[in-house]
Order: sequence, then structure tokens, then C-alpha cells
Amino acid sequence: MYAGIEAGGTKFICGVGTGPDDLETIQIPTSTPAVTIAAVIDFLRAAQDRSGGKLAAVGIGSFGPICTDPHSPAWGQITSTPKTAWRNCDLAGPIRAALDVPVGFDTDVNAAALAEARWGAARGVREFLYLTIGTGIGGGAMASGRVIHGMSHPEMGHIRIPHDVRVDPFTGCCPYHGDCLEGLASGPAIQSRWNTAPEDLPPDHPAWALEAHYLALAVVNVACTLSPACVILGGGVMRQAQLLPLIREEVASLINGYIALPDIVPPKLGDRAGVCGALVLAEQAQAR
Amino acid sequence: MYAGIEAGGTKFICGVGTGPDDLETIQIPTSTPAVTIAAVIDFLRAAQDRSGGKLAAVGIGSFGPICTDPHSPAWGQITSTPKTAWRNCDLAGPIRAALDVPVGFDTDVNAAALAEARWGAARGVREFLYLTIGTGIGGGAMASGRVIHGMSHPEMGHIRIPHDVRVDPFTGCCPYHGDCLEGLASGPAIQSRWNTAPEDLPPDHPAWALEAHYLALAVVNVACTLSPACVILGGGVMRQAQLLPLIREEVASLINGYIALPDIVPPKLGDRAGVCGALVLAEQAQAR
Repeated sequence: MYAGIEAGGTKFICGVGTGPDDLETIQIPTSTPAVTIAAVIDFLRAAQDRSGGKLAAVGIGSFGPICTDPHSPAWGQITSTPKTAWRNCDLAGPIRAALDVPVGFDTDVNAAALAEARWGAARGVREFLYLTIGTGIGGGAMASGRVIHGMSHPEMGHIRIPHDVRVDPFTGCCPYHGDCLEGLASGPAIQSRWNTAPEDLPPDHPAWALEAHYLALAVVNVACTLSPACVILGGGVMRQAQLLPLIREEVASLINGYIALPDIVPPKLGDRAGVCGALVLAEQAQAR
Repeated sequence: MYAGIEAGGTKFICGVGTGPDDLETIQIPTSTPAVTIAAVIDFLRAAQDRSGGKLAAVGIGSFGPICTDPHSPAWGQITSTPKTAWRNCDLAGPIRAALDVPVGFDTDVNAAALAEARWGAARGVREFLYLTIGTGIGGGAMASGRVIHGMSHPEMGHIRIPHDVRVDPFTGCCPYHGDCLEGLASGPAIQSRWNTAPEDLPPDHPAWALEAHYLALAVVNVACTLSPACVILGGGVMRQAQLLPLIREEVASLINGYIALPDIVPPKLGDRAGVCGALVLAEQAQAR
């Protein structure tokens, strides 16, 4: 029995189980670190009690940037996040101290990629990308069946893409980079550009063609860098069903026959990819 | 004893040896496939004769796109290259048939990355990127000490980057994508934009600040996607010594403290990274 935590910018999804079929989850709103982490520890302690000591490990898939280096004193921390209350906040440390079980810690998107590889849209696919578009934009990728970590972890939301200010004068909302991908195409970017919540924009609003254009540019850039067979697009913004076909069409147009197109698909585990992946992180932590 | 071939858009570099210390090379100009491949085979047969049967394998690092799938009938071919005479040309097949030794086949930049990892600027670095800027732009990357292949292989020269046409009205020279990275920042792009060969532009010409800007955008995008500890910038355009410090400065400015900066360095093997890496490909082919 494992516990999984998907630590998101607006909510923490906490669950106990072994996989998507038996996973039971609750949600805790993301407020201050002190309040939210205390609520997570309460949930985990109750789960530990209920399990009769069978809770073997905890996995945490977190928004970032985070420190995943097990040899660093900053392991388990959220680092330079635009969410100032959470900057340099130790997330995994207090949980490990309170529970006294192994804790796996990685990005929310690496967790989601692990879950889609194990149970979802990327089963049997050794080279794929998981990109989530919501409050922020983040990506996790596998090459030769292994999650790409690099020096720390990918921050795909912060790639720079073409932005024609004559077509879209919005300057972007990323506090670090202005009009990087996240600054142009995250949920808050759509909200700021159109002064309307994304879910209130009708499906035929020009917002969606522009959004598909930006996301297609991101898919093309990652496809040219990693050559994934499959690109999974998840997150709140992708709940707009009109987006996926627009993105597929635009990716094909941008690639223009130069390289093979990746399959572009929704996550099979939907909103539960992150928390299911946190169970995989827990399993990996126990195995170490 | 191995033979290595770096198949480039303007020349083929052919060598025999075991590594950079004993490698002897010759150059063959890239003309038509029939002429060039025949000259390569002549070189290899002579090397085989001289070695007294000790030539164990041949490695080829080629310009692309290429097919590296050993299970595909197109293995060994150059596929959708903008160089029309070489499109769908079987490069490795005739060499394997003529020599009757194992042949390793990968992109020129993956070969260069392998060589820099073994003997060069990335020794002991498990996460790095090799980017070459010359007639074309290409990238090879390692994650967890392994070359990233993906579904086929990276085509990093064709990522899209911001292009402010008010600053730079040049529309780009990529026949597939216009103003992709290669279309804006390759040697031929510099030549077309300024009507001058890159090597004839003085070091303080505004061409170089613009070039550094585009290459910095590329480094930032790949750094956000792969999180490399080190970025090696090679190729003919990088012979301009003023470029590297401009790029480092611009990368730091663009990343703006959000993530740790990768080291940005020249290749230690210089122009011989590709052909040295072809020796590693030969060694790998023999081991299989």
C-alpha cells in the first residue's frame, strides 16, 4: 500500500492505494505551506493508522521548480517557483520526518508521465512526452523507457516560442520571462489576454485557434528535440475538446512533412495521472 | 582498428584508428551520392587492405534526417534532407555490402556527442547537449549517459524560436520551415541575410549579436527541455571567437535566474568530434 501526493498550484490531490483501480483520493486546497503541509500530514497519518502499518512509502509529484538531487541539502524543496509563498519551501522533508517511511519526490509532470507509461496512454511506448497545460505548463518525457531528469528536471513551460505581437499584443504573464510558452498559453495567460476565464470562452472563440497555435509550436519544438512517438496533452486547459484536433492540424502544418508526426493524444488517466504517478514514485522510493 | 566516416553536407571526413590520438583522416567533397560513396568505399577498401584484415567495423555519422531503425528496410538511408540529390539515398547499405564488416549508423551530431563524452568536453558529464552550427544546425544529447534517439533522432535545427521581423526582416532559408532555427542561424542564413560569407563579417558586425541571440534562444529551449549540465557548441559558425561569450551572456539574461545555467563550452575535439564519434559507432556495431 502506497500513498501518493500530487502537489499542485491550486490543490493537493492525496491518495492511498496501489494503482488507478483502487486509488481513493481527497483534495486539499493549496494555501500556505504550513497549513497545506499540515493537512497532508494529517491525511497520511490517518492513512497509516487505517492501513495497520502497511503504508510502505509516500510519493510526491510536485509543481516546481524543485530539487530532486538526493545528495543535496535542498532535496525535497520547491525552489524558484513564481508562487512566492512556496519559494524555497521544504515539502518532502517534513512529510518524511512525520511518517518515517521512504519518500519519493519528483515533478508533478514526471509523475504523470510515469503513470501514463504504467497504466495509461503510453503503455509500451518508450519515447514520449507528457505536457500539462493548466495554471502552469510543464512537461515530463521518457527516452528509452526512462524519465529524463537532466541536471535537475525539465522546465518545458519556459521555452521561448514565436510570438507575433501584431497578431497577439498580449505581453505574456510569466514573472520570469514574460512571453515564454507558459506566459502565453497557460490558463492564467488566456484569462489575462481575454479578460475571461478560459472555461467561459465559447469553443469557436478565436482564443482557441491562438492557443492551439502556441501549443503546436511547443509540441513541434519538443518533437524536434526528443523525437517522441507520442505526445500526451493534459491539464485543465486541455479539457476544451476543440483544442486537440486544432493542435494536431497545426503541428502537421508546422512540421510540413520534414519528420514523422508524433501521435498527439489525451492522458488516459485524465486528472488522476499525477497522483497515480506519485504511487509509482512511492514504489520506486521503497525499492531503493 | 575501426574506420569512421563523418558524412557532412559539404565534405565527408574519413578516418582509420582507435581514437583521437591515432586517427588519420582524409576529406572527400560531397558531390553526388554515386561519386562520393564510391570514393568512400575506395578509401575503406584501401584501409582494409593496409590493416591486413584488422578493420573490425565501420561507423558512419551522417547529416540527416536519416533512418537509424535496424528493423526498417530504410536503415542506413538519408531521408528527407533539403539536399535533394541525397534524398532517400542509401548510404550505409552499399558500404556494408562492399566491406562486409559491421556498420554503425547514426547522425553526425549523435556521433559528435559520443566522442565528446568519451574523449572531450563532456567526459564524466551524464547530461549534456552537443549543438553544431554550420551548413545546417543539428543537436545530439545524452541523458543518464545515453544518447537520446527517440522515435527516430532529434532534429534540433528545426525548432521554432522567436523571430522579430521588425528587427530582422530576413524570412529564413529553411526550405521546409522558413524561419526555424536553422533557417535563421545556420551559416547559409547568415550569408543570405547579410549578402556576405560569415567568415568575411568583422567581429563587431551586428550580425554576431543577432546570431548570438538566436543561438541563445536555442540553448534556452533545449536547456528547459532536457536540463543539460553542459552545452557544447561546435560547427563552422562557432569558429567566430566572439560568439561564445555573447551567447553565454544572452542565455543568462533569457533564463533570468529561473533555473541553473548549463556550462556553455566549445567542443574539445574541435572539427574531429564527428569522425571520432564515428569510431565509437563502429565499436558499438562490432559489440552488437
